[in-house]
Amino acid sequence: MIVRVAELEIEADRIDTYTALLSEEVEASVRLEPGVLFLFAVSIKDSPTLVRVIEGYADQAAYEAHLTTPHFLEYKTRTADMVRSLRLVETDPITFKAKNHTSD
Amino acid sequence: MIVRVAELEIEADRIDTYTALLSEEVEASVRLEPGVLFLFAVSIKDSPTLVRVIEGYADQAAYEAHLTTPHFLEYKTRTADMVRSLRLVETDPITFKAKNHTSD
Repeated sequence: MIVRVAELEIEADRIDTYTALLSEEVEASVRLEPGVLFLFAVSIKDSPTLVRVIEGYADQAAYEAHLTTPHFLEYKTRTADMVRSLRLVETDPITFKAKNHTSD
Repeated sequence: MIVRVAELEIEADRIDTYTALLSEEVEASVRLEPGVLFLFAVSIKDSPTLVRVIEGYADQAAYEAHLTTPHFLEYKTRTADMVRSLRLVETDPITFKAKNHTSD
């Protein structure tokens, strides 16, 4: 499994539109792509423009496939002028445990 | 749901012991506590002493109950001299989607 953390800063006056588009993209990715294991998005408390997305992929091929999907490309295009900065943090997984049925 | 991110720096010569104790604590918490929804731990690529734990709880009461459990208290006691720094980042959830059965 590959886990990445995306750290974004969003334009303050676009945050509602941005989170709506991000939520659509997350839903489609987990539903349609076998190799997208989870996508969790949060904002820092009291700093809604600071968004972090924790991304779990089955392997590197699944991550690269994700980048070419229509829903991801639409998200990237439609949010391009809302994202002030984007940093991708690569990680090494240590341990992952979850209750079943965390999808809703 | 409450989501917190713990950002830790671990003593370099204790990292293997630390991650073993953390993994035990994570496993016990998700298995034994109904209100612990998930615990995901990663280290930053090429920086194994920089650990992040993404923590999902059903609500504030579940989080507070977690802090009093024997497995958490044992983890805290046994790792106290391994943790150089700990920062707890509170977040507001935006969206969470996962395949079922992410627990292994």
